[in-house]
Parts: sequence; structure tokens; C-alpha cells
Amino acid sequence: MQVAVLAHESFPDRAKTAVGLLRYGDHEVRAVVDRERAGSRVADVLPDVQDAPIVASMADVPEIDALVVGISPIGGQFDESWRPDVRAALERGCTVMSGLHDFLEDDEEFVRLAAEHGGALDDLRKPPDDLTVAEGTAGDVDATVVTTVGTDCSTGKMTASFELRDAARERGIEAAVVPTGQTGIAITGWGIVVDRVISDYAAGAVERLVQTPADADLLIVEGQGSLAHPAYSGVTTSILHGSAPDALVMCHNAGQEVVHGYESFAIPPLSEYVDLYEQMAAPVSGAEVVAGSLNTSKLDADEAETAVTDYADAIGVPATDPVRDGVPDEVLDAIL
Amino acid sequence: MQVAVLAHESFPDRAKTAVGLLRYGDHEVRAVVDRERAGSRVADVLPDVQDAPIVASMADVPEIDALVVGISPIGGQFDESWRPDVRAALERGCTVMSGLHDFLEDDEEFVRLAAEHGGALDDLRKPPDDLTVAEGTAGDVDATVVTTVGTDCSTGKMTASFELRDAARERGIEAAVVPTGQTGIAITGWGIVVDRVISDYAAGAVERLVQTPADADLLIVEGQGSLAHPAYSGVTTSILHGSAPDALVMCHNAGQEVVHGYESFAIPPLSEYVDLYEQMAAPVSGAEVVAGSLNTSKLDADEAETAVTDYADAIGVPATDPVRDGVPDEVLDAIL
Repeated sequence: MQVAVLAHESFPDRAKTAVGLLRYGDHEVRAVVDRERAGSRVADVLPDVQDAPIVASMADVPEIDALVVGISPIGGQFDESWRPDVRAALERGCTVMSGLHDFLEDDEEFVRLAAEHGGALDDLRKPPDDLTVAEGTAGDVDATVVTTVGTDCSTGKMTASFELRDAARERGIEAAVVPTGQTGIAITGWGIVVDRVISDYAAGAVERLVQTPADADLLIVEGQGSLAHPAYSGVTTSILHGSAPDALVMCHNAGQEVVHGYESFAIPPLSEYVDLYEQMAAPVSGAEVVAGSLNTSKLDADEAETAVTDYADAIGVPATDPVRDGVPDEVLDAIL
Repeated sequence: MQVAVLAHESFPDRAKTAVGLLRYGDHEVRAVVDRERAGSRVADVLPDVQDAPIVASMADVPEIDALVVGISPIGGQFDESWRPDVRAALERGCTVMSGLHDFLEDDEEFVRLAAEHGGALDDLRKPPDDLTVAEGTAGDVDATVVTTVGTDCSTGKMTASFELRDAARERGIEAAVVPTGQTGIAITGWGIVVDRVISDYAAGAVERLVQTPADADLLIVEGQGSLAHPAYSGVTTSILHGSAPDALVMCHNAGQEVVHGYESFAIPPLSEYVDLYEQMAAPVSGAEVVAGSLNTSKLDADEAETAVTDYADAIGVPATDPVRDGVPDEVLDAIL
């Protein structure tokens, strides 16, 4: 699929979906739409991802199949300044994909334009309407299932999932990420936003996801939230049990000690956190934490090296910062 | 409020809501509607709950404020044979309350009749539309918060909650049940069906519930599912963390060893299960399992006595079968 990514005034730092698409997506990105950086190229700011021109509006985008909204503002609302580009994409018969809380399908103009011009609206946060309770059959999947878990939200679970996938692919293993959030879904083109599923069906949604890929030998399930999170632990649990993993990779931000946004709640000591994940996994799949992923983006190189070593010691398994150091053999070996 | 309870061909054994309303509700039940048992009285089959006549249809029901659907068939669908009674209730200007999966509000005739006659439709499974993520503030509630948890679904969590409430009230304590399922909601007239809430907001829904009652000194939160359940553990976790309890009461069916409907999954050993609940509670509220509730309905009196003793030994805290033996002082003392 050939796509353009909408990222007005946000590329690259506040356009997580856009960057993810460029770094990990199977789509060809033919343009990034950002009126602030128009005229430059992706390679000027992000040298290690697929390159594309940055343009001011859909008028400068070559032929594409889909326009992906690559920005997730806090609150997830649609910004009216994006309307002309979405309108133009629909008038060209493209699909418009969005992970915003505001659904494109609730916008009368977009619905009308899509119908008139043969375009389509794909709201990535909208779960399928035929979900059911889990049957407890996720463990029957032939592939090795590895689920990324974390000590908090935003600890690099999605990034670790894609980096592990790419490392496995480099070794010739058929690997796929099982996306459970809108960014991962925008990157891969499939998945279910589990936090939008009614809680009765959340594990069932994940079970369906791990049973979907036909030809993968390694499935890396993108986790969400954390088991000790006062608000999101239910989502985490549903993914942990719904994916019935063979192994877990625990993701952490170096130095973080309290839950982000919930600072009165301490993050449990790392070795206890490993135990908590394993004890919760035990009744369903018996998965153990076999590797760690540490986000060291706030540290310098020396500090990062020490932090990764300390993290590996604390959790008793190999660890890496996959963004800084890639996925070393000992980490990939641990999950296989 | 004066109510009638619809329980066609199901009273009492397959009409859990109807029996719960009669046993624990604050409403006056003026009639049970069951065409199969019409002419007899509740006291003929259930001597220990509030009595009411059993009638064949709404035509024989005296003046009421609401008709409550007291049956929860598997699948939760509306049975067309109930339509004449719902219609008659709406034509009399009554509220009709239902915990079915099929929403009354999606039925055009019912909507029209309610509008025409000043009746109302109350779908108990429909969550409020202004829920949000939890803020992590449930622990600030002044009341003592006790959450019932279980080794599986249907282990008596709702019943234990109401029995604990009644025992506390007998001791002069202002106690209230915080209902999280449709039966508890039908009994008390308030609550949120947490399993219908999107998983992102499930803990937030429970947090809102425990912050609602103004004048209770003891809140007993009705738990759902179980932490080791392959399908429902996410709901359980959301209630465990969203209620931020001071103490837990663990409910179990005597002799049950595997998860009902998921028989390839063993129920963990009881003492390990206690540890699992306490380890999961630790990061948010530090609650411990302080008492046990055992369902011994399949045992004779001698077996039951032994089973309760064994259960208390296994979990290391006082236990009772609250239906058979009530709530002894040592159990009530343990939760206060």
C-alpha cells in the first residue's frame, strides 16, 4: 500500500504514528504532510527510517492509496485545520485512516465525500462489533507467542515489539507484531485497540488477534499499561491472559520510580514486578519474563550502558535498549 | 419503590435477580409474575425472603412503580413471550428495568409506549456515557472498603456482599453494597455493570461507584470474575484496583477445582490464590484477604461444616457459608 502521513506542525517529535509508520511500517510512505516543514525531507530529521518528501498539503502528494492521520493530540480530537487535506484525500478516492478518539465516520462531510468519490473511512480505534468473551484457546496457537509488558504506560512496549520483530526477521524467522493500540494498528494495517473493547470482551479480542496471522512462527503481542497501574491494569491483565504467551519481555524507563500521572503510586521494585507478572501469568499460560527492554533516551551513552546492565541484573534476564543498541543475540535467543 | 418482578417459567431457581430482589432489596415486591406458578405465593417456595403473591401476568399486578425483569437467560436475550407484560407495564406508566443484553431502548414499540404513557425504560447494563479513566483516588474514601473476590465466576460474591452488609447493619453499622453487575443493580437500584464498560474506563467506573454513597461507613464492593480466569480477569483486576479496598473477602465453591466452562484451567491452590490477590492489590491499596465465603450448597450439613473449617484453614482467615450459617462475629470483626 502507498500512503501519505498527515503530521501538520508535529513532525517528527509529536507525530508518533508518522514516525512509527516510517520506521516499522510495510507501507511505502510517499509523503509526509506537515505545512511547517514543507520542502525538506524525512531524511533531514530522521536519518534511520524510510525517506520521503515533506509537503505542505494533499495538493503536493503523489498518487496514494491512503492518507493516515499520523498525529495523536492529547484528548485525541480532530483538528479542523486538517479538514482540507482529509477532504482532498477523499475527493481523490483514497482511504483515510485515523486512530483519533473523534471518529471520521461521525463526520457528515467525510461520510458524504467518501460515498461520492469511492473513498473510505477507517477509524482504527473502533473495535469490531462481533467480539465475544475469550474461549481460553490462545495457548493452542502454533507460533511462539511473546508479549511485551511494562512497569508503566509509555515504557517502549510497542517499539520493543517492532524491534524484536525486525531482529527475528533478520535471522530469517517469520515474525509479526500483534498490535493492540492505534499506533501499532496504523503501522501494520491490522489489530484491535483493546482499551476500547468492553472489558468482558477484552481478552477475547486479544485471543482473536493471536489466532489471526496464518504464517508467523513468532508473534510479538504489543502490551498496554501495567499490572500495577491504578487505572489501566485491567487492560494489561486482559492482554496477558488473552494472549496466553510463552514468554514475556518487560519494558521499563530507566530511573522511573513512580507511575506517570499517578505519582502517589510507586512502581514496585523491579524483581518484585517480574514476580507479579509471572504469578499472574501462571494460571493461564505459565509465561516467564525472559528478557528486558529499557528506554534510556534520557541518559548519555555511558549512563545508558550502566543502566542496561543494572536493569538486566535487577530482573535476572538479558536486557537491551532496542532503540539505542538494537536487539543482541542473547535477547533474541531468550525469547525464542 | 414498589415493584413487580417478571420471572416467567423460571421462579425461583432460574430467576436469580427475582430471588435477590426478594431477599436483599429495599423495594417492596408486590408480585412475582410467573405464569407457571401463578396462584401460589413466594413463601411457598422460599420461606426466608419477603413474601409476595405469584401472578400470571401484569393484569393481576397491583399498583407498582416499576416492573423488573428478574430472569437472565443464557445469552441475555429478550424473550418475546414477555412482551405483553412489558407492554402492559409501560401502558400503566411504569418504569421497566432490565439487565438483559438486549436493550429495551432498542425496541421501537417499547420506546413509543414509554413516551405515550409516561413510562420509562431503564437498561441496567448500559453504562453511563460520561465515564473516564480512574484518577487513583478511590483510596481516599473515608468509609472502610471491602471488596469480594473469588476463585471463579459464580462463587457467591454478590450474595456474600449482601450478607456482610446485612450483618453489619444488624450491628448498627451504616453499610452499603457497591453493585458491579446487573443483579446487584436491580436489587439496589444503582451501580454500573463494569463488564460492559470499555476496558480503559473500567477501573474509573468502580472508582466513581465507591465515591458515590454519602453516608456509609462500610462499603462492600461486589467483585466479578477471578484473577486467574482466562476470559474475565481484566474485569476482576479493574475492580480490585478501581475500588482500592482496605480488605478482601475471598469466595469459593466448596470442592471446585477447575474454572467453570474453561475446564482445562485449574483453579490455583487456595493459599496461592490468596497470595495472588494480595500481590496484585499491593501496589494500589495493600489489601489483604481477611475472610472467606464458601458456597456449600451442594453438601449436606456435616460435609458443609467440615468444608468451611477446611477452607478457613487453607486460606488462613475466618470463613463462613453466609447463606447456610450467616455471618459469624469473627468474620464480621475481620472485615471491620
